[in-house]
Amino acid sequence: MAAPAPNTQQEMRRRNLARVLHAVADGGPRSRAAVAARIGLTRTAVSTLVDELLGAGLLVELGPGRSGAVGRPGTALALSDSGPCGIGAEIGVDHLAVCAVDLRGEVRARTAMDAANRDSDPGPVLKQLARLVEEVANEARGLGLRPAGLAVAVPGLVARGTTTVVQAPNLGWTDLDLAAHLGGGALGTGALTGGGGFGGAGGGTAVCSIDNEANLGALAELWLGGHTPPPGDLVHVSAEIGIGAAIVVDGELLRGTRGFAGELGHVPVRPEGRPCACGGIGCLEQYAGEEAVLRAAGLDPRATAAQYPGPGARIDLLATRAEGGDRAVLGALAEAGSALGTALTGAVNLLDPQTVVLGGALARLAPWLLPSLEHELGRRLAGPPPVSVSRLGAEGPLLGAAHSVVRAVLDDPMAHRA
Amino acid sequence: MAAPAPNTQQEMRRRNLARVLHAVADGGPRSRAAVAARIGLTRTAVSTLVDELLGAGLLVELGPGRSGAVGRPGTALALSDSGPCGIGAEIGVDHLAVCAVDLRGEVRARTAMDAANRDSDPGPVLKQLARLVEEVANEARGLGLRPAGLAVAVPGLVARGTTTVVQAPNLGWTDLDLAAHLGGGALGTGALTGGGGFGGAGGGTAVCSIDNEANLGALAELWLGGHTPPPGDLVHVSAEIGIGAAIVVDGELLRGTRGFAGELGHVPVRPEGRPCACGGIGCLEQYAGEEAVLRAAGLDPRATAAQYPGPGARIDLLATRAEGGDRAVLGALAEAGSALGTALTGAVNLLDPQTVVLGGALARLAPWLLPSLEHELGRRLAGPPPVSVSRLGAEGPLLGAAHSVVRAVLDDPMAHRA
Repeated sequence: MAAPAPNTQQEMRRRNLARVLHAVADGGPRSRAAVAARIGLTRTAVSTLVDELLGAGLLVELGPGRSGAVGRPGTALALSDSGPCGIGAEIGVDHLAVCAVDLRGEVRARTAMDAANRDSDPGPVLKQLARLVEEVANEARGLGLRPAGLAVAVPGLVARGTTTVVQAPNLGWTDLDLAAHLGGGALGTGALTGGGGFGGAGGGTAVCSIDNEANLGALAELWLGGHTPPPGDLVHVSAEIGIGAAIVVDGELLRGTRGFAGELGHVPVRPEGRPCACGGIGCLEQYAGEEAVLRAAGLDPRATAAQYPGPGARIDLLATRAEGGDRAVLGALAEAGSALGTALTGAVNLLDPQTVVLGGALARLAPWLLPSLEHELGRRLAGPPPVSVSRLGAEGPLLGAAHSVVRAVLDDPMAHRA
Repeated sequence: MAAPAPNTQQEMRRRNLARVLHAVADGGPRSRAAVAARIGLTRTAVSTLVDELLGAGLLVELGPGRSGAVGRPGTALALSDSGPCGIGAEIGVDHLAVCAVDLRGEVRARTAMDAANRDSDPGPVLKQLARLVEEVANEARGLGLRPAGLAVAVPGLVARGTTTVVQAPNLGWTDLDLAAHLGGGALGTGALTGGGGFGGAGGGTAVCSIDNEANLGALAELWLGGHTPPPGDLVHVSAEIGIGAAIVVDGELLRGTRGFAGELGHVPVRPEGRPCACGGIGCLEQYAGEEAVLRAAGLDPRATAAQYPGPGARIDLLATRAEGGDRAVLGALAEAGSALGTALTGAVNLLDPQTVVLGGALARLAPWLLPSLEHELGRRLAGPPPVSVSRLGAEGPLLGAAHSVVRAVLDDPMAHRA
């Protein structure tokens, strides 16, 4: 949740440095006076803070611009395009992907590959991921950027505050410390980074975090989803193979005691219905997960997966058939939308979110899910929240990972100075 | 959520005053040195802050005690028993209650009366409540206390950040600004306080807040429930006539965008089951609410309510019959426990709470609800959280209301100095 309250001058200065950086990040290039006006500190105090951030290579001056003060031109401040960058990685069931995002939020390097990670041995998968991370980190260094840390999105439950994947059912991984496997807990000096290390020579701290893909997708939606202002309270539902959700409360992820919050896929929607792999009964995933939808459409999930491997291939198949008016597929998607609506009715009653966003594979299939989903919300709730479709699609978790590193730099700039 | 970060010396001082006061509140009487050790400030800084709090009549000195410093006796500091106090009030369907709680958390005055508030005209109910508040406030003043504010618990939805009851179905109230009806928004100078005003002469700020009874019950559980340490993440389920819940995340109430979060009673548990008064279908309340349980036990809800009026009377009836082995009542309670378990399965999947607590009427009926409730959680969840029973029982919301005023004083002491 919120950062601890500062109790010393030193902590207050750190906090104010972050506020200056966020003011430039949120509002685009602006003068010292405009920053001062925005964050409510004096012009003098802001100038001192800005000098420190310029010296640290986190801000740059763009040359004369318009100041907030009447008639007086000021120098516009902008985030550096050659300072620290965040490396994001994604382990999907069918693919691996890595990207580098600079302080301004721009993707500067990216790579991806198809992979057969279902029920896999983690060793080779993580070795391959480390190679991709090194490739992207080197490309970023070639552009003058300094990788400040790595965040990895995984389709599974991650123990809160750790780098341990407790359970990733589709990968077949349990109780696996990813940081340890990726070359040492710090990730700053292991195999993953090819010895180069993250953070540069100036004492930068390498950030390594592992998070659930649904959580990172929701953060991406919050930061990059084009909402103005960003919603404070959000339920973000996404799907790759399973169905995940992430809950944002007052602008922060709700993680739960163990880190397992947001398991919308296992909310009972047909309480005496089909048994679920989780051990539960009638879980949403049994009615709206990829396998359930394929089955309801008359397709054998295993055979279809063999015939259409790779990221998004079965989702594309369903979308194409739905576009072509395939009645079995349309019926299956309507049934999935209805099940989603029942589960979301429970979530809305419990959480009272400002909005519900469909992301990941659900965004692609939204045209055929939404009518029955919204019908279900409408018959169960007096004032259902709006349901929107993410414009980030399947890129959400990867972008959320990289941006989470960038946010860590913005939140504590002095730990990442050059 | 968390208080805004201080950006000035003045705000930092206010924050540190609150930290000193909380250190004494949480740990009982202790020396300046022990306070300094606990909150990580210097002894000198703490002494200055303590002097201010002594002068403000919020702390008192108990005489020589054991200091944290080796061999050196210190004066033990304690919260004042004649400083500000919080007034809590509860509007129940069958009763009204008011109490005064001092800074130490002790109930110093209390009054209650049976009342027929179902489908009532709010005017007379609120006039009666104002009389009770005045009675208790005067009693508190007679004990040397200064009422610092009033918080009111209501069985309904309260718009977030306002004093407006949007809907209280069992009272029959909608869109009612309680503060306005209770004699002016400030509540400091209206009919409610008999002109005496809250907050005393020293510039104290009157706190008037209206909150959902389930929310205040959950806060009471967090503050007074005897949990050491208090759980950070909690689902607190309570019942008067309807079923309510409150969700605590990282020690704070999750309120939702409109303030309507925690509506466990309207989570679908039999998705194509009975229509609910809320407009939904198969809501938990239709299977575990008081009327549903009476009906399932073969009792007519209206006739039973007429025969057993007053707070808790039907709950007592059900408990007495269950104790006597009444098979219809035992069956009805088992069915209600099972429905609660299904709804809580959804809540646990979404929220991953550390613990679930049954409060209010559910605490009284827990012996007969728990077996089927826990069975249901066990067959649906791999690692269900522990379910415990509140020791506060039906007193929770009233105590939570009064304590919320006391917490407001502890959080911002200088607004409440004598």
